[in-house]
Amino acid sequence: MKIGILGYGNLGKGVESAIRQNKDMELTCIITRRDPSQIKPLTDGVKVYSVADIEKLKDMIDVLVICGGSATDLPKQTPEFVKYFNVIDSFDTHAKIPDHFANVDKIAKENNHIALISCGWDPGMFSLMRLYGSAVLPEGQDYTFWGKGVSQGHSDAIRRVKGVKNGKQYTIPVQEALDAVRAGTNPQLTTRQKHIRECFVVAEEGADLNQIEHDIKTMPNYFADYDTTVHFISEEEFNANHAGIPHGGFVFRTGVTGINKENTHVIEYSLKLDSNPEFTSSVILAYARGIYRLHEEGVTGCKTVFDIAPAYLSPLSNEELRAHML
Amino acid sequence: MKIGILGYGNLGKGVESAIRQNKDMELTCIITRRDPSQIKPLTDGVKVYSVADIEKLKDMIDVLVICGGSATDLPKQTPEFVKYFNVIDSFDTHAKIPDHFANVDKIAKENNHIALISCGWDPGMFSLMRLYGSAVLPEGQDYTFWGKGVSQGHSDAIRRVKGVKNGKQYTIPVQEALDAVRAGTNPQLTTRQKHIRECFVVAEEGADLNQIEHDIKTMPNYFADYDTTVHFISEEEFNANHAGIPHGGFVFRTGVTGINKENTHVIEYSLKLDSNPEFTSSVILAYARGIYRLHEEGVTGCKTVFDIAPAYLSPLSNEELRAHML
Repeated sequence: MKIGILGYGNLGKGVESAIRQNKDMELTCIITRRDPSQIKPLTDGVKVYSVADIEKLKDMIDVLVICGGSATDLPKQTPEFVKYFNVIDSFDTHAKIPDHFANVDKIAKENNHIALISCGWDPGMFSLMRLYGSAVLPEGQDYTFWGKGVSQGHSDAIRRVKGVKNGKQYTIPVQEALDAVRAGTNPQLTTRQKHIRECFVVAEEGADLNQIEHDIKTMPNYFADYDTTVHFISEEEFNANHAGIPHGGFVFRTGVTGINKENTHVIEYSLKLDSNPEFTSSVILAYARGIYRLHEEGVTGCKTVFDIAPAYLSPLSNEELRAHML
Repeated sequence: MKIGILGYGNLGKGVESAIRQNKDMELTCIITRRDPSQIKPLTDGVKVYSVADIEKLKDMIDVLVICGGSATDLPKQTPEFVKYFNVIDSFDTHAKIPDHFANVDKIAKENNHIALISCGWDPGMFSLMRLYGSAVLPEGQDYTFWGKGVSQGHSDAIRRVKGVKNGKQYTIPVQEALDAVRAGTNPQLTTRQKHIRECFVVAEEGADLNQIEHDIKTMPNYFADYDTTVHFISEEEFNANHAGIPHGGFVFRTGVTGINKENTHVIEYSLKLDSNPEFTSSVILAYARGIYRLHEEGVTGCKTVFDIAPAYLSPLSNEELRAHML
């Protein structure tokens, strides 16, 4: 499989390194909106092209991994480039998925291509766990917790506060809430009861720390509905201890069975990820394999992780899977 | 969907009660090798038939759930009855799955039916987690732990020991092993390091307790390779505290990503089940829905959980799934 990468940020670099771990895949090109001469791939011999030349690359790419942002890039890029390629993206604005799906599906079918949108871990693996959980325990409840991990959006919000030089925000599930769900007690949890928000801030010299802390904790949507802690640290400590992009979380399904609903079951799925973009990249490549195979069978249109039978994701044959993994 | 149940033991009863939790399903008949008049279904109005009359029931059943044992029942029943019906079973002798698959596949295709074998949680949901884990983290290791839960096979083995009146065996994962895997240290674990076996025994009056304990602990295959504890208890205590059939377990995938493989990720899936057969039944019904839909699309032959796209398992439409679960 020949893989192209569009966009060489954290996610694009993650895809580049993950391709090395999949022997049936080859990175053929990196495509950028920047000046191609400014991009230095980590992979020897890989060519970098301008997005202006993308139409010329049709024979070089079986699946194009589109590594743009969900706010403005992907709603344009995925429908645009599915004209020329099979594509996969990590569109993660949950509320806008139906619109994005419809846009991509129409153009994919018109051009006999296949696309998979919203790949990664949430949406992605977590979505799968919500679906499997509700299908196998129809009378029950699901719970999704995120963290401990870095929220890019909340970190950006901190950095926009007056007097803040740098900042990072960790989303952390509340331990008591996890324990209550795990015990099968089906708790009703408010936003504040599910997650806490911990902020590490490097202040500008002479800044009013009390004012910064107040501005963060009262920020609507981002922090006001949560118990938020703010730690002021030095730039050295920030760089030494907060450079990574870890993340993770939990999906639970709890439910009952039995003629009198007397038996309780708890399904728990969790991720502890040292690198959010690298894990997302790894999931994307498994699904790139899946849609490539489906396209070989003649399937076109837009898909999600819900539409791909698990066997399509593995490099192993169906016989090997049944013999060794079932 | 019209569901038939073949075999009215723990699993068959679990399927019967689970059908009530799935609004798109209806239990149309129970089929038994016993005298049908001896079976008293919990569901009003459900007819019970002898297995000798099974061919006459073709119009009453969209999917037949075969609730036999893996040792001798299913290898005969599933290939036999897929002649007449779409069928699903919980065949769990891992080593013999390829043979069973081939037998069922051939006859299913000859008769334009669909079958799904080895459904439940292991094989079943745990198999899915092994597949997904290895596909999204290709450089890594997986671990499966079972328990805490009742092993039917080991409990049977205890009851065959001289002087034992009743017995139950719990398989328990070793906490240190779970912790080491969870920490991402990729431990190499022996059989003894992964699980302990805890036995509760009601002895016959006057039996030699030391001899019973010795006979259990040294039993090859079942106990000799494990740290085993034996507790002698009264029949009253046995009935009060050891009547249930709980089970569960853990599937882990740990792996690395990054250009220098510098980042570690841990995926953990766990089940805590009050009733092993009822949870198995619930999984079976979700897959019964899946193969019924695939058969409506014209698909025939033998399938496993690896072959079914997740969306087929849910009563929700694809649009609803994308809007609410992705």
